Amino acid sequence: MNLNELILQLREFARERDWERYHTPKNLAMAMSVEMAELVEHFQWLTADESQAVKDAPDKLQAISEEMADILLYLVRMADVLGVDLDQATQRKLVLNALKYPPITKV
Amino acid sequence: MNLNELILQLREFARERDWERYHTPKNLAMAMSVEMAELVEHFQWLTADESQAVKDAPDKLQAISEEMADILLYLVRMADVLGVDLDQATQRKLVLNALKYPPITKV
Amino acid sequence: MNLNELILQLREFARERDWERYHTPKNLAMAMSVEMAELVEHFQWLTADESQAVKDAPDKLQAISEEMADILLYLVRMADVLGVDLDQATQRKLVLNALKYPPITKV
Amino acid sequence: MNLNELILQLREFARERDWERYHTPKNLAMAMSVEMAELVEHFQWLTADESQAVKDAPDKLQAISEEMADILLYLVRMADVLGVDLDQATQRKLVLNALKYPPITKV
Repeated sequence: MNLNELILQLREFARERDWERYHTPKNLAMAMSVEMAELVEHFQWLTADESQAVKDAPDKLQAISEEMADILLYLVRMADVLGVDLDQATQRKLVLNALKYPPITKV
Repeated sequence: MNLNELILQLREFARERDWERYHTPKNLAMAMSVEMAELVEHFQWLTADESQAVKDAPDKLQAISEEMADILLYLVRMADVLGVDLDQATQRKLVLNALKYPPITKV
Repeated sequence: MNLNELILQLREFARERDWERYHTPKNLAMAMSVEMAELVEHFQWLTADESQAVKDAPDKLQAISEEMADILLYLVRMADVLGVDLDQATQRKLVLNALKYPPITKV
Repeated sequence: MNLNELILQLREFARERDWERYHTPKNLAMAMSVEMAELVEHFQWLTADESQAVKDAPDKLQAISEEMADILLYLVRMADVLGVDLDQATQRKLVLNALKYPPITKV
């Protein structure tokens, strides 16, 4: 995934639609949380097993992958607006998580 | 950003902690929505201007970028669990969005 | 608002539709969070002033009040399923909040 | 539950802390969604059965009932700020839901 290219595409997309004034970090966080709920909605009444079986239901999976893409697009747009290096932040968080949750030592 | 490498790192991370049984799509969607709210929390009482000024507050921005990374990590983990190609889904969504929201024609 | 009556109405509503098996606390929390996002969606692109002006837009307010009702209905249903006394919990929280956030003393 | 009394208590609470300027509908929706996620967090890794067993875990249930109260308090506060009659909206939604989802006829 080319984050820099995606940032530029989304920047141009907002500019061409005169959406820049709407894209405050506050608004983007709200909009992203709405997309997140649209993803959650697919799973709300499913059992654990049913939620795993979604993997084998192409239509359902297509719809779910669109919600996932919506979240990613807002995340990348917010990173651009705030000047956050998402790649670096992710690598840093992986290190922090590894320190916070040590692996289980099996005997 | 190397999505494939990230997928493998998160897969190994879950395996080493015996977390695979928790990582149903349903649970991952819930956990991701909780991380999302932690991002929203940073902006809830800010004005639009204050939310943009976060860009120039390094400590605040650091905390926010960690929440953004948490969302991305769950998104990538869910993509792996469901077998979703996040890169392809994103490119597809960009095309759909361009069709849904035509650019403004300025006179 | 008669909470007990509402609890009984929702209990009967779920029973008549054979929804009881879906109404685990986990699922109700997810469903409530989805309704919450539908409320948030109304405000995501509004300025602070525009969000206040909603008060004077009857159609908009009608739609918003329906989302608010949805949240309340799930909250009451969850209280029933978990055996939580929502009225008592609310009174208790008011006291806790008053201790946590002392009022401003004006000179 | 006395909604009118609760509205007055929360109105006074906000006034005494000079919080009225923060309590735009937009901000209250965001803050309520954050409280919602704190409720969801209690259930994110639980199985359906474990989420039901919470009923018999007093400490857990206490914490959960506090999150539920937080949601209700923001809901009532938002109703006041927007001039929404929450009781009437709820009764109206019950009727709409009954029309939308007819009960199952058992043979």
